[in-house]
Amino acid sequence: MTIDSIRYASRFDGISGSAIREIFKLLAVPGMISFAGGNPAASALPDEACAELARELLLEKGKTLLQYGATEGYGPLRESLAPYLKDRFSFTCAPDEILPVTGSTQAMDLLCKALIDPGDKVVVENPTFLGNMQAIRLYQAQLVPVDSDDDGIRTDELEEVFKKEHPKMLYVIPTFQNPTGRTLSLARRRKIAELAAQYGVVIAEDDPYRDLRYTGEELPAIKSFDTEGWVAFMGSFSKVISPGLRVGFLAANKTLLRKCTIGKQSSDVHTANLNQAIVDAYLRRDLLAPHVQRICLSYAEQMNTMLGLLAKCGGVARYIRPQGGLFIFAELNDGMDAGKLLTACVDRGVAYVPGTHFYAFGGHENTFRLNFSMSSVEQIKQGMEKLNDVFTASMRS
Amino acid sequence: MTIDSIRYASRFDGISGSAIREIFKLLAVPGMISFAGGNPAASALPDEACAELARELLLEKGKTLLQYGATEGYGPLRESLAPYLKDRFSFTCAPDEILPVTGSTQAMDLLCKALIDPGDKVVVENPTFLGNMQAIRLYQAQLVPVDSDDDGIRTDELEEVFKKEHPKMLYVIPTFQNPTGRTLSLARRRKIAELAAQYGVVIAEDDPYRDLRYTGEELPAIKSFDTEGWVAFMGSFSKVISPGLRVGFLAANKTLLRKCTIGKQSSDVHTANLNQAIVDAYLRRDLLAPHVQRICLSYAEQMNTMLGLLAKCGGVARYIRPQGGLFIFAELNDGMDAGKLLTACVDRGVAYVPGTHFYAFGGHENTFRLNFSMSSVEQIKQGMEKLNDVFTASMRS
Repeated sequence: MTIDSIRYASRFDGISGSAIREIFKLLAVPGMISFAGGNPAASALPDEACAELARELLLEKGKTLLQYGATEGYGPLRESLAPYLKDRFSFTCAPDEILPVTGSTQAMDLLCKALIDPGDKVVVENPTFLGNMQAIRLYQAQLVPVDSDDDGIRTDELEEVFKKEHPKMLYVIPTFQNPTGRTLSLARRRKIAELAAQYGVVIAEDDPYRDLRYTGEELPAIKSFDTEGWVAFMGSFSKVISPGLRVGFLAANKTLLRKCTIGKQSSDVHTANLNQAIVDAYLRRDLLAPHVQRICLSYAEQMNTMLGLLAKCGGVARYIRPQGGLFIFAELNDGMDAGKLLTACVDRGVAYVPGTHFYAFGGHENTFRLNFSMSSVEQIKQGMEKLNDVFTASMRS
Repeated sequence: MTIDSIRYASRFDGISGSAIREIFKLLAVPGMISFAGGNPAASALPDEACAELARELLLEKGKTLLQYGATEGYGPLRESLAPYLKDRFSFTCAPDEILPVTGSTQAMDLLCKALIDPGDKVVVENPTFLGNMQAIRLYQAQLVPVDSDDDGIRTDELEEVFKKEHPKMLYVIPTFQNPTGRTLSLARRRKIAELAAQYGVVIAEDDPYRDLRYTGEELPAIKSFDTEGWVAFMGSFSKVISPGLRVGFLAANKTLLRKCTIGKQSSDVHTANLNQAIVDAYLRRDLLAPHVQRICLSYAEQMNTMLGLLAKCGGVARYIRPQGGLFIFAELNDGMDAGKLLTACVDRGVAYVPGTHFYAFGGHENTFRLNFSMSSVEQIKQGMEKLNDVFTASMRS
């Protein structure tokens, strides 16, 4: 029997892989200016510091770090995460309410594994991060998109959906949302925590960009308003230390965290110890704050340059001005199609992600997402000029 | 609504976490001699070499290693794995037929994700590694155990089961099996590859212990007899370099590997780059072979010491003499219960894993698994004396 007769699991029906990751492969062309990714700048990756830390940690406790670790995570990291969460995200939790994971993508996977049966409903922002939409789809959940406005996801609509649809979970990115760059207002953060307890819906709060704030006031996490344990908080060090290390964490109620921990036993046994220890050293030795401060100075300049040029860019009808993060979301004039125009842009040497991919049911063909972290100010100027040329030409034709 | 009303996914029905990992937690008592784990010896963990490698690699290509990597894996590692597989496992595959994963546990998870719908049947050896039985159960598959004898899993029974039950997958550990220590014979390896193609069953071949051979002749992998692509080979560096690094790989037919890769996008995006680069350096610089040779000298002495004492141990009716690996599987006299006796043993300061946990449907209460890699020859002598005392006393009472 040839392998062509293999029967795959039904969870893959209609799944074809991350559209974004496929776009990324096209960007390997030398000289391409990519506004498509969500990667940190090369200059933001602390290679020398990590080199010395890795050596020091392995020489000092290599026999522990190279051995099997606990699924529950590297003890010192759990201990240093607790005060970090209190300080940065304004909620209190004990070390045993925190599970270090292999990137916060794994936190999403484990929450789905713990909670989702096929056919269950999961509410997502419309638009939202498409990687995690794929994660949810692989658990054969039904996505229920709820629109957002300048204050983030609309809690009036959300309450209607909670009431009528009885979803298992809400997936929400409260700060500098991907792709919109929007930040959920304080009132709505409080309201979402209330709705969660009122209707018995788990909130998967995904907050990887929070430390990348360039202007405005910090807001407490949704989880800081959580009295009953319905909010599961997913954090990541991918945007502020290194994505290549694959270290994130899940902070949640103990019973939910226990299910996720059992799920993780079969996912990868535990997250690599050395990688957890490097992040722990960043927290424990106060290396993170000054590093983030330095990154933010540069990202702020890149964002402001891009925003300034976007204001003058042909074909752009409107865009959202974020207070931080990595992305700017924009809309072209009615009738223009960012997906179709991407080919011409890539030919000119600049790329972005069409916004339609971020909507659970597509549409919104005139939207697109720009990333500014991976390009220098000079590259941003050149890339925006190319975009302006293509979009302007398209309006004429 | 309190969190107590949370509704978990049905995949967790009847799942309570790995029994072995729970036993391990009891072993933290100082002075405990543990024959329970499956960890490499501390002396087998190359902390100094990894410290220098990590530093060198991060200084040399830290900007790449700390950045997002491809889900498909770190390119250089895929390239160095191909000749390694040819040399060590006797099968040919191209770099794009190899997916580096976050420990071979993830390979099992991804194969299940790609293939298993609830109710599908998965054949396992009886007994087998309980961690992967849990992985399979979390996909709500039905386990179909097939007995093994001195030549490994019985292929006559296997063919009957393939014919009648139409399973999706066979999970098999061909070399120094966990827990039995048995090695699948050459004839049966060939036969399993044939049966896979004949009946359209994916073979999940798990071969992490192969390099730990202390006596006897090496055998080619089942995959070396695979003509149609039905054999998926899972490898690991946990037993020969470091489990804490979490690097393994899956070698499989491209279409199956593509499904696993899409599954991995949502599991953890990619395996940590630094960890892949360290393993790559071990392969590329020929550091692995001499390291393994050194480990094997020591493990062989530990195994032979344990086997010698087991021959004289009270209450032990029979045991399997392995040619390598980490485990010895033994049977107590009829009527003795290794699970019940464990408490007395732990009280005396020695531990093992009751064999019943390794059988899909339990039973076999008189069996137990001993590990020799984590204990020195002196500790093995002491521990076996304690076992002898407890087992002998139990026979008298």
